[in-house]
Order: sequence, then C-alpha cells, then structure tokens
Amino acid sequence: MDAETYPANDVVERVLSGDVRTVARLIRDIDDGIPGVRDVLKAVYPYTGRAYVIGITGAPGVGKSTLADQVINHLRKRGRTVGVLAVDPTSPFSGGAILGDRIRMQRHCTDAGVFIRSLATRGQFGGLTQSTRSAIDVLDAMGKDFILVETVGVGQDEVDVVKSAHTTVIVVMPGMGDDIQAIKAGILEVGDIFVINKADHEGVDRTENHLRLMIEMADKKYEEGGWKPSIVRTQALFNKGVDTLLDEIERHGRHLKQSEGGLNTRKRESRVREELSEMVKNRLIEKVGQRLIQTGDFDRLVTEIVNGKTDPYSACDDLVFPIVKKL
Amino acid sequence: MDAETYPANDVVERVLSGDVRTVARLIRDIDDGIPGVRDVLKAVYPYTGRAYVIGITGAPGVGKSTLADQVINHLRKRGRTVGVLAVDPTSPFSGGAILGDRIRMQRHCTDAGVFIRSLATRGQFGGLTQSTRSAIDVLDAMGKDFILVETVGVGQDEVDVVKSAHTTVIVVMPGMGDDIQAIKAGILEVGDIFVINKADHEGVDRTENHLRLMIEMADKKYEEGGWKPSIVRTQALFNKGVDTLLDEIERHGRHLKQSEGGLNTRKRESRVREELSEMVKNRLIEKVGQRLIQTGDFDRLVTEIVNGKTDPYSACDDLVFPIVKKL
Repeated sequence: MDAETYPANDVVERVLSGDVRTVARLIRDIDDGIPGVRDVLKAVYPYTGRAYVIGITGAPGVGKSTLADQVINHLRKRGRTVGVLAVDPTSPFSGGAILGDRIRMQRHCTDAGVFIRSLATRGQFGGLTQSTRSAIDVLDAMGKDFILVETVGVGQDEVDVVKSAHTTVIVVMPGMGDDIQAIKAGILEVGDIFVINKADHEGVDRTENHLRLMIEMADKKYEEGGWKPSIVRTQALFNKGVDTLLDEIERHGRHLKQSEGGLNTRKRESRVREELSEMVKNRLIEKVGQRLIQTGDFDRLVTEIVNGKTDPYSACDDLVFPIVKKL
Repeated sequence: MDAETYPANDVVERVLSGDVRTVARLIRDIDDGIPGVRDVLKAVYPYTGRAYVIGITGAPGVGKSTLADQVINHLRKRGRTVGVLAVDPTSPFSGGAILGDRIRMQRHCTDAGVFIRSLATRGQFGGLTQSTRSAIDVLDAMGKDFILVETVGVGQDEVDVVKSAHTTVIVVMPGMGDDIQAIKAGILEVGDIFVINKADHEGVDRTENHLRLMIEMADKKYEEGGWKPSIVRTQALFNKGVDTLLDEIERHGRHLKQSEGGLNTRKRESRVREELSEMVKNRLIEKVGQRLIQTGDFDRLVTEIVNGKTDPYSACDDLVFPIVKKL
C-alpha cells in the first residue's frame, strides 16, 4: 500500500466524522508502519488535543484489563465516549495482541460509544511508543472524550507509553512478589494514581503502607502546588472502588488545568518534546540503516567482527564517524 | 571522568586477571555511560567469547531471583565460576537496582567464584541492551565460566537483553493471570527452556499443557535439527528441579555446539549483528541529538508544534531531511 491509496482529505474527513471502519484501518496501518499514513496523521493533527488520555499499567495478573473494562463502563454511564488502545510490546511476532484482554472487553463491542483497538508490532527500529501516540491522535480527532491506553507489563516501553498520558494509573495487587519487585522507582515517578486492585486479598494494608512510604520518600519532587500521587483500593471484578478511581482521575484532571505553573501546558510541551525526539530518532535510524545496508558496509563489518578482525566499538566508529563529520 | 583516567592497558590487564574492584568500577562506568570506557571495551573485546551466557526472564513474582540464586549455587558445586548481571530497565531513576534481588543473592558475596552486579540506568537515547552486552563482555574477559543475566519483567527490553544469551530460560508459575498474559508469543520465540517454578502450586498441569501446546503450535519453526524448547518444573525455594534445569542448559549448550548448521556460529553472527546495529543507532542518535539541540532547531520546532504552527510529522521531516540528503 502506498501514499496514493490514502487520499488524505477523504480519510481525514471520515476520521473526523468518527467513521469506525476508516479509523480501524488507519490504526492497523499505523501499527503496520505503512508509509502513507504519515500524510493522514499530518492532516489529522490540528484536530487533536481535546481528548483526555488515561494510561493504565502494571504487572501481569494484577487485573488491569478487568479494571479497564470497569472504567470504560463507568465512563459510559457518565455519558462519555471512550477510545481504548491495548498496547502489547511483548508480542512483536503475533498479529493480534492481547487476545485475552480483547475477549474480556468484548461486551463493549456493540456500544458505538466505545472503540477498542490493540497495537502489537514494533518495527525493526523501535517505534511502538510512536505508533501509540499516533493512534491516540487518531482517536482524539475521531472525537472520543476519553482515551484509555492499557499496557501489559512494566518494562521501559510501557513506562514510555503511559507517561505521555494526562493521568497515569499504576495498578498493583496485595502481596505481589515481595512488593519490591512490583513497584519500581521508575514506575513511581510516572504514577499519578496508584490502584491496589484485588483489595480483598491478604496483605492489602502492607501494600498500601509500602506505597505511602515510597510516595513520602519521593516527596521532595512534589513541589508546592504539585500533585502528590493518591492511592485507591478497588475490586474490579466486583465493581468496587471504580467510581472513586474515576473521581480521583477527574480531580487530577482539574489539578492539571488549574495549576498556577500551567502544569497542563508543561505536560503538553514535554509530551511534544518526547514525541518529536522519538520520531526523529526512528526516521533517522530508518534512513541511515537503509543506507548502511545498501552499501554493504554493515555486513562487511559484522563479518570482520565475527572473524576477530575488529571489535564492535571500532566498527561502530567506522560507520558513524563519516556521517557525523558531515553534520 | 574522561578517557585519560582510563589507562586502557592497565585496566585491561586487571580485568583479565579478574581484579574485582576494577571490574566493579568498569561495569558501574558502563552503566553510567562514561565515554572513557569505550577504549577499554575495545581492548577487552579480543578476550571475550569463552563464557557461556544464560538469560533468565519472566514476570515479576515468579521467583526468578530465587531460581537464579539456586542456579549459581549448583554451578558453584559443579566447580564453575559465575558472573551475574541483574538488569532492571524499569528503574531509570534509581541508582541501585533490584535491591530485593541483591539481598537475596547476598549469601554468595563472600564467594570469590561469584561476581554479582546490577545494571539500572538507561541513557536518554536507550542503550540498556548495549550496556548489558558490554558488561557481559567484561565478565567474560574476567574469566567467568558462566554469566547469568537476569531481567525483571517481560517487556521488549528484557526480550532484547536475554535473546543474545546462549541459552534463554523463561520462568513462569502455575496459574499466573490467565496464562494468556503470562506467556506471550514474543517470549515463546526467544525461550530455549521454560521453567515452571513454584511447581507445587495448583494449576501446574494446566500451565505445562498450555506451554506444550504453544511449543507444538510453533513447531514449524523448529526445523530439522533445530532445538525444541523443553519444559522443566522447579521449586527453587526448596531447591527442587534445579539440577535438572542445569542438565537441560548443558544439553542445549551441546546442541548449539554440535548442530550441523553451525547454530552456534549463526547465533554468534546474529548477536554481533544486533550488537552493532544497536550501537550504531545509539551513537548516531547521541551525536545528531546533540547537534539538533545546539543549533536550537529542535526547541524551535517543539514551540511551533505547541503553538499549533506545525505538526510533529512535518517537524520531523524538517529535522531529518537535511541530514539524510547528505548521506
């Protein structure tokens, strides 16, 4: 598929009118890295910035998907439309990601106010974070009030993906591993709200104390007027605590808007900064990579390393230096 | 610290003689991204390629660290020296990673045959995978027989890190989430041995059946003479099944060596290919990024995007095109 099959104006109009089939195909093409989508994304971009983005992450087994499912439910009851992106970077080889999650969320599939997609692929040179951001833009332009981004696991990819959300929700459960493994400093840094799901399980107080302690220890970074992460207990399976979670998300949203320092603007700028940086990185690598493979320089040096004629560090210098010299 | 404080020859000699303090500092500097280490790594590289690298990964809470601890123990009993790298990409902000794991492994700290380090940081432009590879090289040159690389979680970073190991061990436990979340296609692709730890827990048969099914389904990729992933049950906490796991790792090692297709060579070449590709990517981004920030072009475009004067896709073209044109 090439740019010609994307008559941008037409597609853009359809996206803006909320046409489900067009959006579905567009997101699939974003996920597949079809070059033609870039023109559509450029045209769609001016219509973004209205949706509220909620990131949900946490280790496998804590009940993220059940919680997401309930959040969708409650947002619908409050009359809001919802776009959902299930992001699964651990499945670079499988076409359809997060089979289980999609099954679980299936009950929303007849609701026109809910649009659920999953993203799985990850190009040779990274880019999952970028694909997710582009898909968020599309759901935003499509007119969804809320966009839920759910990621599986707690790797760096997931952190990158959720930290561009307006509100980032970190889900844990009582007694996971020995707590140290479940809640990493990196995760704490990006969490706006911590949810202890399965709050009827043993050890919930210990987990909450542990979270409070970590939040207090990091207190210096919550400058005056800053947001101090809150903790909410839920039992998503029994639909308990989800309303409290939504209230907390709204409270965080108001905080972002009202902050004197213009936290919302700052968050937007840092999001743009990261987005552009990621994009430049991927494009550059793609283009330079193509060139190095075409010229055969890359393969030649791989062979030399394998044969012990050079080392990767010197080979890297050989490849990069000529390019940097021309900057 | 700069290159001058690294009189490469001296450091290299000390690394080769197994000097613990030198190696500890070198790995810390690799983790911190000190530029001077590159020269040391170049000089050390010719002395690598002797150690056998075992990667261990799995979701939080499955007992990876306890298992790693037992594997170290059993390798020591078989008279082998061991280097351990605990890799934690979810802690980009914390200096000392994997506190819990280190505590758990502490009993080895008086054993000169075991050397344990953790890697946590991740530079602005990625590089954890590269840091890990460099640290493996150092432990290899230091003379360790086995190098254990343990990663927390199951994100893409972890997959990248462990897939360059000779043998990759994926640890799961019975009844995790609903199995679908625990064992992803991407993980299956890189796993040589699957360990079901906590095998005394309920649901172990179901988990084993599930694994077998996934291995069978992927069977077409195990070409004639290829390695079909095996499944081992362990109870690391009670030191059960660990000997069987080590036997299985040895069997896999023999398989790599004896494969008619030269699997070992192929694995080495693909490792070198990935290593070099990653390295070129990071260097390039670092250099180009510095330039774009120095010229102010990057900040200018961020402001323009925030003010709605352009979109990230066009801004990216503006930044990358002039560089690509000069290639």
